[in-house]
Amino acid sequence: MHSFSVTIEPRFYETDALGHINNASIAAWLEIVRMKFIASLCTDGSYEAQHWILASLQIDFVAETFFGDDVIGRVAEVQVGNTSLSVLCQMHQCGKLTVKAKAVLVFMDDKTRAPVRVPEFLRKQLNANS
Amino acid sequence: MHSFSVTIEPRFYETDALGHINNASIAAWLEIVRMKFIASLCTDGSYEAQHWILASLQIDFVAETFFGDDVIGRVAEVQVGNTSLSVLCQMHQCGKLTVKAKAVLVFMDDKTRAPVRVPEFLRKQLNANS
Amino acid sequence: MHSFSVTIEPRFYETDALGHINNASIAAWLEIVRMKFIASLCTDGSYEAQHWILASLQIDFVAETFFGDDVIGRVAEVQVGNTSLSVLCQMHQCGKLTVKAKAVLVFMDDKTRAPVRVPEFLRKQLNANS
Amino acid sequence: MHSFSVTIEPRFYETDALGHINNASIAAWLEIVRMKFIASLCTDGSYEAQHWILASLQIDFVAETFFGDDVIGRVAEVQVGNTSLSVLCQMHQCGKLTVKAKAVLVFMDDKTRAPVRVPEFLRKQLNANS
Repeated sequence: MHSFSVTIEPRFYETDALGHINNASIAAWLEIVRMKFIASLCTDGSYEAQHWILASLQIDFVAETFFGDDVIGRVAEVQVGNTSLSVLCQMHQCGKLTVKAKAVLVFMDDKTRAPVRVPEFLRKQLNANS
Repeated sequence: MHSFSVTIEPRFYETDALGHINNASIAAWLEIVRMKFIASLCTDGSYEAQHWILASLQIDFVAETFFGDDVIGRVAEVQVGNTSLSVLCQMHQCGKLTVKAKAVLVFMDDKTRAPVRVPEFLRKQLNANS
Repeated sequence: MHSFSVTIEPRFYETDALGHINNASIAAWLEIVRMKFIASLCTDGSYEAQHWILASLQIDFVAETFFGDDVIGRVAEVQVGNTSLSVLCQMHQCGKLTVKAKAVLVFMDDKTRAPVRVPEFLRKQLNANS
Repeated sequence: MHSFSVTIEPRFYETDALGHINNASIAAWLEIVRMKFIASLCTDGSYEAQHWILASLQIDFVAETFFGDDVIGRVAEVQVGNTSLSVLCQMHQCGKLTVKAKAVLVFMDDKTRAPVRVPEFLRKQLNANS
């Protein structure tokens, strides 16, 4: 897959009293990476946020993240299921791995709100990137 | 006005690296107080969130707020305008005044999205409370 | 284990444009449940937040959570390792299971910032609760 | 004053169920603008966050802000008092004014935690920019 990455500049209010970025802010940052990654596949603006439901999220907090240096959030791998995508993401700060995460997104029919097969258009995009 | 107050228990992730509750969390807490106050007036569930637009917010950070002790958010006064309410709120922690705030809310017609006169029903409720 | 639960009242700003509570807010709520659970074990105020590092977090978003009804966050099970606790949490809204989560917390020495064995005091508390 | 501005890309989780960016997120964004502005004056890294206490914040929500387009947060004017700075900020999205805000920051002695005169170094920087 082509490397997809997003630069996130930590915000002061995302720190907590332990002096580092709070875990909930990192969960939030992962949404930024996922959504920009999905948007990068759907260059015509189709298949936007309302099509994807977050089914599960696994986060390993490998090292602390701090205010003051940019974080690079990278999509390391995507596994395509029938109605879902598993998006593996890594975050680095100052070259150090800080976060590994896996999000499972389910593709929903816009009207029925039921899971449907990930469309061929997206499968091709993901394969073209691999 | 009858005293209207809400108890808010500070959350750890609402602190920042300075060791106190971040100012943006306090702005967020003020929304809780306002919305519960409005809901207390509209006991039939009418006039909910989508009817009120926050036009302005003034916050005086009188003293720091900390994690570990409850905060009491109190509506100290309400001024009723033609299409707006000015809601004055105070927050105390351990008996100490920490925040004074004034929010101006504009009442919107649900369909036209234009400001309309605050309904008599609410005016009566507010007068009954004064 | 004795049932440990926390009631969380969803806040309007925790919703997102899809009309439900955003996943990052749920990650944040899980911190509330974990920290209050830990505090309930340490009735003398010892072993506070700075002793516990969140190593990993797994969240299954079983059903959507909405603004307007309380959420019950319950600690369903705790697995005690050598230097860690695995805290299994469930959230319900209106009697419906919405979230299942597992957090792994590592117990840190206050001074060396290295993992150390979960103290006997806490092991006894956890066994007493089982 | 030289124009100082920051580009903020709205995040999906900063929206609320009314479909726009929640007011508390805008309060948070104002902290980003203020802190980056202060950092731009203190090119040697001195006078960082812990020196400045937010005394008050006034926000006029001139128009709604939406997900999907960048926001430009601009410092429009700075008024220098004895121990304080008043920072006037404007936000625009797609060329439209959305937010006007005024923050009063008090300069604190690092050790005594009492307000002290804004240092000459910063006054010169601010004058040089005017």
